[in-house]
Amino acid sequence: MIDPRVVKGFRDTLPHDEYLRSQVIQKLAGAFYLQGYQPIDTPILEYTETLLGKSGGETEKQIFRFRDAGERDVAMRFDLTVPMARYIAMHKEELGLPFKRYHIAKVWRGEKPQRGRFREFYQCDFDLVGSSSPASDLDILLTAYESLQTLGITEFTIEVNHRGILREYLEKIGAVEHTVFILRTIDKIDKVGQELVKSELAQVLSDGIVNQLYEFLFPEKEVESLLEHMTSVLGLDSPSILHMKLIFNAVKNLDLSHAFQFNPKITRGLDYYTGMVFETFLSGDRMLGSICSGGRYDNLLSLYGKESISGVGGSIGLDRLLTSEKCLQLLNITTPPKVFIYHNTDGYTQAYSLIKALQRIGIVVEMYPDAKKIDNQTKYAIRRGFSQAIFIEGNGYTLRDMTKKESVKDLSLEMVVSRLQEQYLG
Amino acid sequence: MIDPRVVKGFRDTLPHDEYLRSQVIQKLAGAFYLQGYQPIDTPILEYTETLLGKSGGETEKQIFRFRDAGERDVAMRFDLTVPMARYIAMHKEELGLPFKRYHIAKVWRGEKPQRGRFREFYQCDFDLVGSSSPASDLDILLTAYESLQTLGITEFTIEVNHRGILREYLEKIGAVEHTVFILRTIDKIDKVGQELVKSELAQVLSDGIVNQLYEFLFPEKEVESLLEHMTSVLGLDSPSILHMKLIFNAVKNLDLSHAFQFNPKITRGLDYYTGMVFETFLSGDRMLGSICSGGRYDNLLSLYGKESISGVGGSIGLDRLLTSEKCLQLLNITTPPKVFIYHNTDGYTQAYSLIKALQRIGIVVEMYPDAKKIDNQTKYAIRRGFSQAIFIEGNGYTLRDMTKKESVKDLSLEMVVSRLQEQYLG
Repeated sequence: MIDPRVVKGFRDTLPHDEYLRSQVIQKLAGAFYLQGYQPIDTPILEYTETLLGKSGGETEKQIFRFRDAGERDVAMRFDLTVPMARYIAMHKEELGLPFKRYHIAKVWRGEKPQRGRFREFYQCDFDLVGSSSPASDLDILLTAYESLQTLGITEFTIEVNHRGILREYLEKIGAVEHTVFILRTIDKIDKVGQELVKSELAQVLSDGIVNQLYEFLFPEKEVESLLEHMTSVLGLDSPSILHMKLIFNAVKNLDLSHAFQFNPKITRGLDYYTGMVFETFLSGDRMLGSICSGGRYDNLLSLYGKESISGVGGSIGLDRLLTSEKCLQLLNITTPPKVFIYHNTDGYTQAYSLIKALQRIGIVVEMYPDAKKIDNQTKYAIRRGFSQAIFIEGNGYTLRDMTKKESVKDLSLEMVVSRLQEQYLG
Repeated sequence: MIDPRVVKGFRDTLPHDEYLRSQVIQKLAGAFYLQGYQPIDTPILEYTETLLGKSGGETEKQIFRFRDAGERDVAMRFDLTVPMARYIAMHKEELGLPFKRYHIAKVWRGEKPQRGRFREFYQCDFDLVGSSSPASDLDILLTAYESLQTLGITEFTIEVNHRGILREYLEKIGAVEHTVFILRTIDKIDKVGQELVKSELAQVLSDGIVNQLYEFLFPEKEVESLLEHMTSVLGLDSPSILHMKLIFNAVKNLDLSHAFQFNPKITRGLDYYTGMVFETFLSGDRMLGSICSGGRYDNLLSLYGKESISGVGGSIGLDRLLTSEKCLQLLNITTPPKVFIYHNTDGYTQAYSLIKALQRIGIVVEMYPDAKKIDNQTKYAIRRGFSQAIFIEGNGYTLRDMTKKESVKDLSLEMVVSRLQEQYLG
C-alpha cells in the first residue's frame, strides 16, 4: 500500500484555484498577443550546460539536475529567459529580429520551502529581443501597463530607473569598480531602510563618497525634477539620462504620467540587467512587493558566441497576484452561470435538448451521473454550488431557485431558456 | 562557448504552432468546462512509488527518474491518470464524489525517438470518477462528441465496445484465463488484419474455440444488429450487453446514431480498462488513428488501499490533431486581424491613441521598435505577415494595403478605425 503524497516543496491545485489561474493566463496571453507579442514553447528539460553556462553558483545548487536514460546531463529549467536565449540562437533566421515573444509556463527551483514559496511555480514573461532603442523599452513598459489593466488592476505605479545612471556617476567619481556591489546594496533600501544601506556602503566606500552618492541619488533638499538634478551632475549629454527623458516624455505625452515614476532606488539585484529596470507596485500595497518587474539585458546570446544581441523584458508575478486578497478582488474573475438538471432513469435523453440549448448560450449544465434518489442529486448539486435547478416533468419543466427555495412550474423549453438568459446574461 | 541545442527527443515550438495549440487547448478547456468538468493541476514531479505503484515493467524503463537534492526518489509524470488517482485519494473529502475533472498538460516518456514521436507531449484528459452508471459512460462519450464538435471536427465515428462482453463469453466457454491475451491480440486487428490475428490466437486456443469466438464477434452471415446477435449467445440478462444497449438507445434517442457505432474490435490494449471502451476515427481517415479514446477503469485508488472507486474517462489526441493536415483544415483557427504602423522618432506617442482604438476592437497593432528607415520597417512588416499598414502624416493617416500596394490618404483616426472594422470584422 502506498501513501498518497505530494513531493516536498510541491503542491496540488484545486479546481477553483486552477480555474482562476487559467482565466488570468488566458487574459494575459490575449493582452500580450494584442501588443504584437507571439507565444513560443520550449521543452522543460534542457542540457545542464545550456542552463548554467559558465555561471553555476547559486543557480547550480537550486536546479533539478539528473542524467537521463542516455546518460545526458539534463536539468529542469529554472527560468524562461535562458531557454529563450537558446531558442533564439537556434531559430533566429526563421524568427527574424527584432522578435517579441511571451511565454507563460512553469519553472522549478529547489529552494528551501517556506510559506508561500514552492519549488514549482509559474513565470509569465514578455520580451522584445534585437533592439536597444528607447522605443523598445517603452514597448515593454506599455505592455506591462496594458496587461495589468486587462486584468482589472488599474491602480499601480511602474517605477523605472536606468542602471547606467549610477554607472556613469561612479565612472565620473572614479569608483566604477564598485558598481555591482552598490547596485545590489541599494536594491535592499525598501527592505532595510536608507540608513542601514548607507552603513553597509561605508564598509567599502569612504564616508565622503557615500555622502556624495546619496546627495546624487536622494538629494536632501526638495528638487523639482530628479532627472534634471541628475543632469546637472552628469551633464546634458549623459546617455542614460537622455534615454530616461525620452521614455518619460513619451509617457507624459501619452497621458500616463500617473502610472509611471522615475525611482533611482529600483536597481534589480540581478547582475544581468544593463539599462532600464522597473518594478510595479499596487497602489496602497507596496508591502505585497512588485507585481511586474523587468529591464534591459545585453549580450543575450553571448554564451553561444553569437553576435551581441540586446533585449528588454518584463515578467508578471502571477503567483503573487493569485495569493493577494486585494488582487483577487480586482481580478474579478467570474464563473459562467450554471444550472443543475434533476433526472430519473430516462433523464439523459430527455434532458439533452435542454442541455444543448443552455450550453449554446454559455450556461454550464450538469446532471448527477446516476439516476439516484432526489436527495443524492440535491446533495451533489449543493456541493457543486448550483443555485438553479430544473426538474423535468412530463413535457414541461420546473425551474427551481435553490437559494430562495422557490419553484416555477409548467415551463416550456423556450421559456426555461429565456428566463435563464434574462437572469444570467441580461 | 556552448552549442545551442535541444535535448534529444525534445522539440521547440515556433510561434505559429504554439498559437494554434493554445487556441485548441482553450477551446477544449471551454468545452469541458461547459459540460461540468473542472480543471485541476498537479506537480510534474511525483514520488516514483506513486507513479510506478507495484507495476514497474515497461513504464519503469520509460520514465525520467532521479533523486532530488534531498535524496527523494522522484520522477516526471508519464500520464495524467496516475497523478489524478493520487490527487483524488488526497483531496476526496474536499472534492466530493462523483467528481468530473479535465487536465490538459505535458507528460514525459523516454521512448525511442521516431518520426512524429517525442519524449515530451501533451495529454488532454477528461474523467468522471466515482460512478459506474451507464449514464456516466454516456457523459464521457457525449463530452468526446461535443468537444470535437467545438473544434470544428464534425465528421467522425466514436466506436464503442464493452470488454465485459468478451469476458462473459470466455467464461461461458471456459476460457476466461485467456481474456487479457485475447483482448490484446484482437486490439491489433486494424493493423494486421483478421487472418493474422486468427492464427496468433490459434497458438494458444484450439481452432474450434477460435472459430466459435470469431463467429461470436464477427459473424459470417450479415446480422441486423450485432448486439442482438450477441444477446442470442450470452442471454437477455448479460450485464455488458444490457449496458451497451442502454448507451446505444440513448444515443439513438439523442439523434446521434450517425456518430456512434458498436464495434467489438475496439478493445484498447491497456490492462486497466474494465468496461466500456472507445476510439474515435475521422471519417475517411482511419489511417490517422484514433483522435479520442478512453474507457472505464475500476479500482482507481486500489494502490492507496482505499475503497474501490470506479471511473471512466477519455483523452483527445492533441498532437495527432495538430499534425494532421486534414484536422488542421477542419480546426479552422483564425488569427486576429493585424495592422502595422510606420513611425518616425515621435511615432510612439503620436500613434498611441490609434493603437488603443484599434486594439479595443481586437486588432493586433505593431510598430517596428526603432524609428529606422522606412525600408527596415517594411521588411519587418512583411516578415511578420502584415497586409495592412498605416502611415502617420501630420494630423492625418494614410492606410496602405500592402498586398494590393494601394493607399488611401488623408484619413482621420475615426475613418481609419471604421474602415478597418468594416474590412476585418464585418
